[in-house]
Amino acid sequence: MSDNVTVQGTVAEGFEEVREEFAAVLAEERPGHADAQLAAFAGGRQVVDLWGGDEITGTTLTSVFSSTKGAAYLTVALLVQEGVLDLDRRVGHYWPEFAVAGKELLTLRELLAHRAGVVGADAGFTDAELADDRVMAERLASQRPYWRAGTAFGYHALVIGALIGEVVRRATGQSLQEVFEERVRAPYDLDFHLGLPAELESRVLDILPMDPTPDQQAELAAGAASPRSIGGIAFNQNGEHPTDLVAFVNTRTARAKSPASVGGVATATGLAKMYAAAIGEVDGRAPLLKPDTAAEFGQIHSDGYDQVIRGRHSYGLGFEVVSDTYPFLGAGAFGHAGAAGSQAFADPRSGVAYGYTRRRFAFPGGPAPENERLAAAVLRAAEAR
Amino acid sequence: MSDNVTVQGTVAEGFEEVREEFAAVLAEERPGHADAQLAAFAGGRQVVDLWGGDEITGTTLTSVFSSTKGAAYLTVALLVQEGVLDLDRRVGHYWPEFAVAGKELLTLRELLAHRAGVVGADAGFTDAELADDRVMAERLASQRPYWRAGTAFGYHALVIGALIGEVVRRATGQSLQEVFEERVRAPYDLDFHLGLPAELESRVLDILPMDPTPDQQAELAAGAASPRSIGGIAFNQNGEHPTDLVAFVNTRTARAKSPASVGGVATATGLAKMYAAAIGEVDGRAPLLKPDTAAEFGQIHSDGYDQVIRGRHSYGLGFEVVSDTYPFLGAGAFGHAGAAGSQAFADPRSGVAYGYTRRRFAFPGGPAPENERLAAAVLRAAEAR
Amino acid sequence: MSDNVTVQGTVAEGFEEVREEFAAVLAEERPGHADAQLAAFAGGRQVVDLWGGDEITGTTLTSVFSSTKGAAYLTVALLVQEGVLDLDRRVGHYWPEFAVAGKELLTLRELLAHRAGVVGADAGFTDAELADDRVMAERLASQRPYWRAGTAFGYHALVIGALIGEVVRRATGQSLQEVFEERVRAPYDLDFHLGLPAELESRVLDILPMDPTPDQQAELAAGAASPRSIGGIAFNQNGEHPTDLVAFVNTRTARAKSPASVGGVATATGLAKMYAAAIGEVDGRAPLLKPDTAAEFGQIHSDGYDQVIRGRHSYGLGFEVVSDTYPFLGAGAFGHAGAAGSQAFADPRSGVAYGYTRRRFAFPGGPAPENERLAAAVLRAAEAR
Repeated sequence: MSDNVTVQGTVAEGFEEVREEFAAVLAEERPGHADAQLAAFAGGRQVVDLWGGDEITGTTLTSVFSSTKGAAYLTVALLVQEGVLDLDRRVGHYWPEFAVAGKELLTLRELLAHRAGVVGADAGFTDAELADDRVMAERLASQRPYWRAGTAFGYHALVIGALIGEVVRRATGQSLQEVFEERVRAPYDLDFHLGLPAELESRVLDILPMDPTPDQQAELAAGAASPRSIGGIAFNQNGEHPTDLVAFVNTRTARAKSPASVGGVATATGLAKMYAAAIGEVDGRAPLLKPDTAAEFGQIHSDGYDQVIRGRHSYGLGFEVVSDTYPFLGAGAFGHAGAAGSQAFADPRSGVAYGYTRRRFAFPGGPAPENERLAAAVLRAAEAR
Repeated sequence: MSDNVTVQGTVAEGFEEVREEFAAVLAEERPGHADAQLAAFAGGRQVVDLWGGDEITGTTLTSVFSSTKGAAYLTVALLVQEGVLDLDRRVGHYWPEFAVAGKELLTLRELLAHRAGVVGADAGFTDAELADDRVMAERLASQRPYWRAGTAFGYHALVIGALIGEVVRRATGQSLQEVFEERVRAPYDLDFHLGLPAELESRVLDILPMDPTPDQQAELAAGAASPRSIGGIAFNQNGEHPTDLVAFVNTRTARAKSPASVGGVATATGLAKMYAAAIGEVDGRAPLLKPDTAAEFGQIHSDGYDQVIRGRHSYGLGFEVVSDTYPFLGAGAFGHAGAAGSQAFADPRSGVAYGYTRRRFAFPGGPAPENERLAAAVLRAAEAR
Repeated sequence: MSDNVTVQGTVAEGFEEVREEFAAVLAEERPGHADAQLAAFAGGRQVVDLWGGDEITGTTLTSVFSSTKGAAYLTVALLVQEGVLDLDRRVGHYWPEFAVAGKELLTLRELLAHRAGVVGADAGFTDAELADDRVMAERLASQRPYWRAGTAFGYHALVIGALIGEVVRRATGQSLQEVFEERVRAPYDLDFHLGLPAELESRVLDILPMDPTPDQQAELAAGAASPRSIGGIAFNQNGEHPTDLVAFVNTRTARAKSPASVGGVATATGLAKMYAAAIGEVDGRAPLLKPDTAAEFGQIHSDGYDQVIRGRHSYGLGFEVVSDTYPFLGAGAFGHAGAAGSQAFADPRSGVAYGYTRRRFAFPGGPAPENERLAAAVLRAAEAR
């Protein structure tokens, strides 16, 4: 328990309960575990902007791991909306080298729905390769899928950004990161960076590694699979240079290149504001996505047993179906969590957007459990207005 | 416990155990919960005709909620058997307005297999709309599916009857209810009504609402999802006029119009006799379905995670795969339960047809748990002959 | 406990732990339950050759039930590799009589992935029919699938060998058993027989029937499904001559004809050596399968709810995805267990091949639980070298 953690920041009228819940969450953490940021928008306006812990402030940037993917999928959604990309075209139409080894018929829609099956490479990647989406894409193009492409699905944890990034690059001549910067980050001055400028490095706090209790340690060991298993390959444990993901994101290289699967750097407000801008008017700008585009990207496309996560999971077009995680959200809510515990989403039916970051990698990895309480409090407050 | 409930009615020789099981079931109910009817056919002959409780008699009509769907699917099966409908045609072939928003390629087969994804409407329905299949169909035609049509499935609880009803209407010029009346109900003088004549209203007893214990109440609250979730939309909780399904079916409007998803009114004998007539000679008439048609409609078409039920479920062509619910049934058994606890099915491999109704809405909704004991007793008796 | 069971045979240097684990496994068996053989290859060389129990020796042949299927699938893989068979052709291309009753579009790939749905025949088989793949194929050709072909999947326990065997026969003019003998068994002098010569009968020990404890008996009874259910049909319990599978495999007829689903006879070394030869150089011969062929046959093709097993299961092209059973194996490991408890597989990423047989039918049927410990010990030893 960290009884003395002070919550800072502000909430709009009616969102006081969220502040209390956030304070309760921080108070329950062990010392050195409590650094976190929480942000929410409702109806296009920021209604929650809170932080607390030992070192974090409201403008501290941390690596958001797979919450990065939300930025990547939003970028693809914009290109689909404009007709630059067609979901039902084969990936090989844009990227001919990919159309081999059983991936010939795979469509962009299936790729986004985590159905390609190339979750990694037989020989693994070095960290330098992992930082460079273009290099990864080149390596993955010839890879045979680990399941029959299209017939099953699984979380392309470290590579989905490289795969869709290559499609973006072939179709537009720009990297996904460049398109995101130009079309999404800069116009809203978002603190959600794919490619962090050197001058912002001073605002970054490194992610702290998971610090499991002995019981948690035992639970992790019991669930361990072979580094050569599909899950091991998906998290790049299979080659000669198995990745320590926390160490990886804590490098300047990762932050500078920001591979679109896991390399983004953000504040909670940056995350929440991006999702708010996706579904509604923010800063006087029209919503980035038309309701139809948002509905299609949030629509369930793959549901069932995830070959990487080894349990049930549900994906829209790239995005996680967060209403499946949090039943208090409406149909079509879309977003993405990150390994250290971050969570971010838009819930178009309530008009709520949510962002959460934490500095200490949470057990057991993936969306930290406190997100359920925090998001529920935000929804209750938003609906009570 | 309702120790004094008297079981009335008759069983054929060899089915005495069924009477005992039914008596045991009623005796275990709390006071005011015991009204129920049980019927079974074997080899085309009625072998069980039982009832018991406070007010119910053998000819009492009650609303059977989703057991209504069995009548709707049987009607479609007849039209498929005759070649009026083709399972592998696109729905849009019959109903062009439906072929929009991602539903362009959906076939009638997929629609029946609960794969369309239009489980409700973004704005919800009024009860008046919910009573009128044609109005619902018009509203649903333009709706974007809540999952990618064809790639997942879920129980179209309140709308499947309207959707397939519109296909029937476009193909035949008649409503599904009219076709059912003409082709199924009238020839057998079935007490299973889709559109209850006013003169039969005096035989109806209203459904009594669920009366959960405090523990059951807590369980229901814990499992509650957002009214805007897919499940909430499927049960019309999302709009300005959330439906109280018990109150809805207890109206004259619902009984008169009998929407084909939930509006039917029947006795247990009516339910069982319909299924008996579907698979065998009844009243000297040839079976309604050829073995091949029955086999195809009972064949598993969708199996896995049901997006509405939020758990594993299994559907044939519309019908529930009841052998999945009751492993003592044979492959190809088909039927449908109802929210208040009713159950009805045909088991072609044993020649058994089964019907059960109850007046008090059972916890937790869906086929009442006692059906498992009752149906097992019927099967044991039928197989011992 | 059988404290006095002596383990015989040899292990290569570094595999001593495997011998200890095998001894521990045998010591925990009840008297009369301990007869078993364990074999493993690593890098093409036999590293484990152990046996122990009352009567078994290293060269004792026992019926391996469904581990037989591994030989059948390897035979098909060879023919695919050579271009004699094409996975994406319709089964009806090779076998026109099969292309009826909803099986018209089914491909060889789908058939191998247990998606055909003809897991048995409505009227069941006699044991004489069950021993003859060609007779079974003739009966199954006209059978309507028990689920919509292609949309679901389930273990074709007793018939997959007949179905693919008929494809082999139509394409090559030889039986699957003949092709296996000529192309796989004879060149390596494998003790894995599909069609056991009479002169080897003296080396056979009959399988001993399951001998469940009272608790196990109760568990089996509780899980029992109707003989007419899909599972009942798949295990030929539905007709007038329900099969006792242990009695069946213990006949000379079954061993002589060796139906390709369940009729093989082998030693543990025979099983392991076949898988070693599939993926690596053995006896100075080139690997039977090119890496690409092995990868495709081991690639997940069907994953989810198995309609016969009534739980989650995962298949490649015929083969079981054994890395799903044993997470310590690498992606692409392929093999097949047998009802009495045998297990056999290749793990291409570690170069390990594994074989295990036991004489006493293990509870609850399927791969015996000790395989997990034994295979883990083999993998640990192989990776430590």
